[in-house]
Amino acid sequence: MTNHELIVRYFDSLNARDWAGFSALLDEHVVYEMPQTRERVRGREAYVDFNVTYPAAWKLEPVRIIADESRGSSEFKCFVENEVLVAIAFFEFNGEKIVRITDYWPEAYEPPARASRFVERV
Amino acid sequence: MTNHELIVRYFDSLNARDWAGFSALLDEHVVYEMPQTRERVRGREAYVDFNVTYPAAWKLEPVRIIADESRGSSEFKCFVENEVLVAIAFFEFNGEKIVRITDYWPEAYEPPARASRFVERV
Repeated sequence: MTNHELIVRYFDSLNARDWAGFSALLDEHVVYEMPQTRERVRGREAYVDFNVTYPAAWKLEPVRIIADESRGSSEFKCFVENEVLVAIAFFEFNGEKIVRITDYWPEAYEPPARASRFVERV
Repeated sequence: MTNHELIVRYFDSLNARDWAGFSALLDEHVVYEMPQTRERVRGREAYVDFNVTYPAAWKLEPVRIIADESRGSSEFKCFVENEVLVAIAFFEFNGEKIVRITDYWPEAYEPPARASRFVERV
């Protein structure tokens, strides 16, 4: 299984609530981190529990997946309660298992004044 | 030049304010987007101007760079005015030029209550 496929299965198994399949992708000592809140979950059992107990009927949809021999990243959408959030995950691998996930959940904000006259609003 | 090297040079030329070297990495029709503020800058001349005119003495330091044949991403630190911000850029390439950059600037926030008992604060 390539690292790209490993990330595809990560999202697929989460969406399917296939906890056995999800767990099989994770290294026993996987670490999950959210730098914005300085939260960390350590170990496969703990990280599966974090997802099993996560409230709300979320569904994840990768926008892009990029992977090389040892690392990967994905920009993905999270559909939850009539909202669409965009998030980013970085992955590190140990053999064919995911050993570290770093998750960012950037929020919208009002732009500052820009010095360049070339900035458009979409 | 590999896509990984292209990203290294992107940061190096920005830090050096080497605008000729920076410009040479960009496709003529490069598009720069910041989804959080819905801002967009279109074209090489415009995106160079955006960086030339950007205020403050920032310095960028890639934490990781991941690239495959057509796309790349980087988590990077931005040192600016005694602050350290963490940001994420996704890159798309056209030949040996950067043709699209998508930039995220996630901010810290207080975590919600978590259902799992395994979440630690770092």
